[in-house]
Amino acid sequence: MKITAIAGGVGGAKMVDGLAQCLEPGDLSVIVNTGDDFEHFGLSISPDLDTVCYTLAGLSNDVTGWGRSGESWRIIEQIKNLGGPTWFNIGDLDLATHLERTRQLKDGKNLSQITQSLCERWGVTHPVYPMSDSPVRTMVNTLEQGWLTFQEYFVKYQFQPVMKEYRFENIENAYLPEEAKNALVNADWVILCPSNPFVSIDPVLKVNGVEQILEKKNVIAVSPIVGGKAIKGPAAKMFLELGIQPSAYEVLRKFRHFINAYVVQFGDGTEIQTQPHWNIIIKEMDTIMSDRAARKRLAMDILNFLETYRGEI
Amino acid sequence: MKITAIAGGVGGAKMVDGLAQCLEPGDLSVIVNTGDDFEHFGLSISPDLDTVCYTLAGLSNDVTGWGRSGESWRIIEQIKNLGGPTWFNIGDLDLATHLERTRQLKDGKNLSQITQSLCERWGVTHPVYPMSDSPVRTMVNTLEQGWLTFQEYFVKYQFQPVMKEYRFENIENAYLPEEAKNALVNADWVILCPSNPFVSIDPVLKVNGVEQILEKKNVIAVSPIVGGKAIKGPAAKMFLELGIQPSAYEVLRKFRHFINAYVVQFGDGTEIQTQPHWNIIIKEMDTIMSDRAARKRLAMDILNFLETYRGEI
Repeated sequence: MKITAIAGGVGGAKMVDGLAQCLEPGDLSVIVNTGDDFEHFGLSISPDLDTVCYTLAGLSNDVTGWGRSGESWRIIEQIKNLGGPTWFNIGDLDLATHLERTRQLKDGKNLSQITQSLCERWGVTHPVYPMSDSPVRTMVNTLEQGWLTFQEYFVKYQFQPVMKEYRFENIENAYLPEEAKNALVNADWVILCPSNPFVSIDPVLKVNGVEQILEKKNVIAVSPIVGGKAIKGPAAKMFLELGIQPSAYEVLRKFRHFINAYVVQFGDGTEIQTQPHWNIIIKEMDTIMSDRAARKRLAMDILNFLETYRGEI
Repeated sequence: MKITAIAGGVGGAKMVDGLAQCLEPGDLSVIVNTGDDFEHFGLSISPDLDTVCYTLAGLSNDVTGWGRSGESWRIIEQIKNLGGPTWFNIGDLDLATHLERTRQLKDGKNLSQITQSLCERWGVTHPVYPMSDSPVRTMVNTLEQGWLTFQEYFVKYQFQPVMKEYRFENIENAYLPEEAKNALVNADWVILCPSNPFVSIDPVLKVNGVEQILEKKNVIAVSPIVGGKAIKGPAAKMFLELGIQPSAYEVLRKFRHFINAYVVQFGDGTEIQTQPHWNIIIKEMDTIMSDRAARKRLAMDILNFLETYRGEI
């Protein structure tokens, strides 16, 4: 069974790590959000790609939840001494990734090629693709600060400003890299990982052609909302600020046109009333991925379910 | 007595440090070669400016002769792991300088403003100016590798290729920053530091207007060639490859149109036969700056000589 996962940052990376523990490299591909990429100190930074790759490589920092394990902070301390900005806390090892990515971009390589080259170096065997080789920038319009880049909103202001709306700058020029498109088209199942539905999954869906492909595919989503709360990050807060009560149901409603099956936490299924014509099967599982074993267990539960799926509700 | 020093990298930095030990900030300004600036990993690197500033700040690495003291190499090790280029060995602390400079450039500040800002942070009290706020790039045409950027020639190939010629790319657009021009115009004496005459001092002289100013000023040069050899770097090799026997005399001949006085190492003066109409006074001193005290001693010797200078040969 060939799986293609669509992932954002931390939640997506955990899900992908679980799947990678169960599936051979030929059976799992990952397409990653690049809407929260940005430029800082002249460097091209791809936070979600790095989180997914570091996690798959076993290099991720499980204490901070982002960045690299065994990290040090010598550069950012110097930047502070020089009066530079320290709101985006770049570790030394992480910085090397940004430097090398930037160098290869200036050398004329595209983000797909660079990601592949870095993955080879890190020993990541499952193919990881950016959602697009052309830059897309998620922008968040806030009540207090106006339009912010995603990283300003998310990191600099710790997602405290009230979100009024968001948009994906240059999404109209974004196309799946050829290999990512093939992976999506050839997948038996596409998994929408439990990442932020607005700013992690939605940018990938809005890349030219992706929704049209997904409409023809078997797609399963995993809810990032558990018991009305987000496991991590601003998803639940974003729901509220858009006037929607955060719930697993509202995530489902957002993705209902594309998905055939939907995984929620034990206990969250009872509240979900789907319309019969949506034709979506709801499965309760333990979706909390508190350690690597839990990631694998959830992945196994999903894969076992997909093996037996026959389209009945 | 107001002194403006024109300096390149290591030799120039040592001379400037000696002068800074003798002169108040109001009496010493430094104009630094930026021809060997370059872009690497997307970062703007100014090696000579950094060498001068680190030296004045007491932050320079006296073991390596370049970069920072207390340096570490975590990033470049990672770059190596990622298969990136390691020929330009950037230390972690040094890297922070390049990051912050690049960030401020992207922010719209010019190199003069950035240098001033960094100097304030480092506690450098004597004003240091780049020779130009617009980029100049020293290019070296070599027998074996064709045209190389200066850093490729100097660091990547360790100045082993045979130099056929060199040029200063974009020098036609280079003008002294206003404050640097004022420092030069208002100087009682201009000192050409014992830096490489071809690729460290010459780029500064070739900035628009500098030669015209120098023709009207009192200028003293210190020979970087001692006993027919360069203290450091490719100067002597360059002389030979241009078909000229390396000597203190040949440095003098190169700068003869601008200088009133010329300092050479004890023993090197006897071989120098100046033309009477050159009207240049030759002074032998101990020009070897083996430690900070030696830098100060040479600076004192020069300043004492300038105090008594009356224009007689």
